[in-house]
Amino acid sequence: MKIICSKHQFLQGVNIVSKAVSTKTTMDILSCILIEAYDGHIKLTANDTELGIETEIEGDIIVPGKIALEAKLFSEIIKKIPENDVILETEENGNTSIRCEQIHCNIMGRTGDDFSKLPVIEKENKITISQYDLKEVIRQTIFSVSDNENNKLMTGELLQIEKNQLIVTSLDGHRISVRKIELNETYPQMEVIVPGKTLLEISKILSGEAKDFVNMYLTEKHILFEFESTVVVSRLLEGKFYNINQMLSTDYETKLTINKMELLRCLDRSTLFVKESDKKPIILKIENEKMDLMISSEIGSMEDKISIEKEGKDLLIGFNPKFLVDALRVIDEEEVDIYMINAIAPCIIRDENASYLYLILPINVSNSHI
Amino acid sequence: MKIICSKHQFLQGVNIVSKAVSTKTTMDILSCILIEAYDGHIKLTANDTELGIETEIEGDIIVPGKIALEAKLFSEIIKKIPENDVILETEENGNTSIRCEQIHCNIMGRTGDDFSKLPVIEKENKITISQYDLKEVIRQTIFSVSDNENNKLMTGELLQIEKNQLIVTSLDGHRISVRKIELNETYPQMEVIVPGKTLLEISKILSGEAKDFVNMYLTEKHILFEFESTVVVSRLLEGKFYNINQMLSTDYETKLTINKMELLRCLDRSTLFVKESDKKPIILKIENEKMDLMISSEIGSMEDKISIEKEGKDLLIGFNPKFLVDALRVIDEEEVDIYMINAIAPCIIRDENASYLYLILPINVSNSHI
Repeated sequence: MKIICSKHQFLQGVNIVSKAVSTKTTMDILSCILIEAYDGHIKLTANDTELGIETEIEGDIIVPGKIALEAKLFSEIIKKIPENDVILETEENGNTSIRCEQIHCNIMGRTGDDFSKLPVIEKENKITISQYDLKEVIRQTIFSVSDNENNKLMTGELLQIEKNQLIVTSLDGHRISVRKIELNETYPQMEVIVPGKTLLEISKILSGEAKDFVNMYLTEKHILFEFESTVVVSRLLEGKFYNINQMLSTDYETKLTINKMELLRCLDRSTLFVKESDKKPIILKIENEKMDLMISSEIGSMEDKISIEKEGKDLLIGFNPKFLVDALRVIDEEEVDIYMINAIAPCIIRDENASYLYLILPINVSNSHI
Repeated sequence: MKIICSKHQFLQGVNIVSKAVSTKTTMDILSCILIEAYDGHIKLTANDTELGIETEIEGDIIVPGKIALEAKLFSEIIKKIPENDVILETEENGNTSIRCEQIHCNIMGRTGDDFSKLPVIEKENKITISQYDLKEVIRQTIFSVSDNENNKLMTGELLQIEKNQLIVTSLDGHRISVRKIELNETYPQMEVIVPGKTLLEISKILSGEAKDFVNMYLTEKHILFEFESTVVVSRLLEGKFYNINQMLSTDYETKLTINKMELLRCLDRSTLFVKESDKKPIILKIENEKMDLMISSEIGSMEDKISIEKEGKDLLIGFNPKFLVDALRVIDEEEVDIYMINAIAPCIIRDENASYLYLILPINVSNSHI
């Protein structure tokens, strides 16, 4: 193979596909980027077998062929060479020469015959969404994905298509996050469970521009994302996602309306008193038009007060402050509504039409010293 | 003790003294900041027994006294409270209340009786230097301090006062860095060896402004730095520093003049091919008006060319590219002069009046495959 591409093209391509390079192995084929040059197309591919990314870059093919190069080394070389054309040329044994201006590097590549190609996906069930929306919806839900591999389904997010809505749900046993996004078209009902890691990596390579779009294709075992000259394919998690509808009751006994930043700052401070080994709750004492917040642990204690608007009963309830912080951080509104029933039922933070909904289980404080 | 200071004052003070908080211990007196309020002065002190920092902050003393607070927790609390006045009040048992607006935190402090105070230093042998100069001279030499505790003297830097010059020297067995700075006054001849860690930490709290000054006081066992409302005291390393003068010969057989950035970029690229376990040299082949650079290791190989101005003989010589990179990074000039004698004698990078001088030992390349 012999190709000529600009440093810029190589760098852009490498940065995109690197998200699917396995970091756990070294000098294994999974830690490589496959470069293929055939029929006028130069393609870079990385595939850790769960997640695969392919992107096309611009350049000239002098001799067609392919080579697999260790991703980290190749990307470091590309980063450190001048902004100019790069000639990449391979020998049959895998020896690869990288030339740019007066610089000439040689590294050993692999023929790439053992590189696991991306699965061929039928492009059906297409859904189109703006890159901005997809990136945002991931950011707003990814934090409540579980990292416990024993509960495989909890390490993924449920993506549901309902008419012209995309509903994204994640949960980890202590909390549930749900976001709804309006799509430009109406689609047939579908749902898939996508690994959290896939969503995290794809959110890193999305432009985040509202004017740029992504096509998603859902199949039984895979999800395929297509945007600009990039294709991302991920395995789906198999199984039936948790039925959360029964938990999302709209009944409540207490409704609070609170300035979000004020509450967030207070809760964030209180996390200083949470010890990993002994998770003491922050206790909310809701009385009339104010809320007292208290936390007390081996480390120390903190008390704070926030003025609130309240509808319904007074209440004393405790939470892991970190869970409230995670949810409040991704809500853009200035004021939030929090709905509660009693000290042992989950609270729900949501807007009126539930475009966002964060459910958080309380910590029983009946025995705590208050 | 009861004092009132602004969040800003506390934060500034804590950020300064934290540099001398021991990070190796937890909840030990060495991980604490001592706050003392007597005679109208509020002083924060940290002391890891090698390095001690004391700074005064502004505020009101309601009840004089002192308390030692765990540095990390106290600094996190101060960071996360609102920009307003903070009331710090202690009880006899060490319980400390921190109040700001409606927020009330309690943490356990220590009476501070076991806190090791800074040594009392006679303020003699005063030298005045701009904060900019001191910060720069540390940055320009600190990288060649050895981290090998077996050679204790090499973990420090030699500070020499000669007339109106401060000469700073560091070395690690493979290289020597020397910087000379002009002072505004002439002083008697003095020299001390200051631990590298002290210099690193002090360079972090210096403003770096040419108009701000530091007073340094040298004693037999300590160096004291005084600037604004801060005092830094460090133990000195005891012993006789290496005599390097015989190595700094101005004889040479080959002199190169090279564009610094071009050389730096090339050397930086070549470090990609250096393996920790098998340090292959970059080989410089100096011939006529050009220099070929070559490196070859298990990882791969690289060749590059740089145009040079040469005076004297052609030469083939090898170096650890990282050592050249470290030196070139802290030289501000656009062009550098490199002086060499032969393939086994050290090279010296210096300007005409030796305001900077970097000596680097070569790697024998006679047996290398070129």
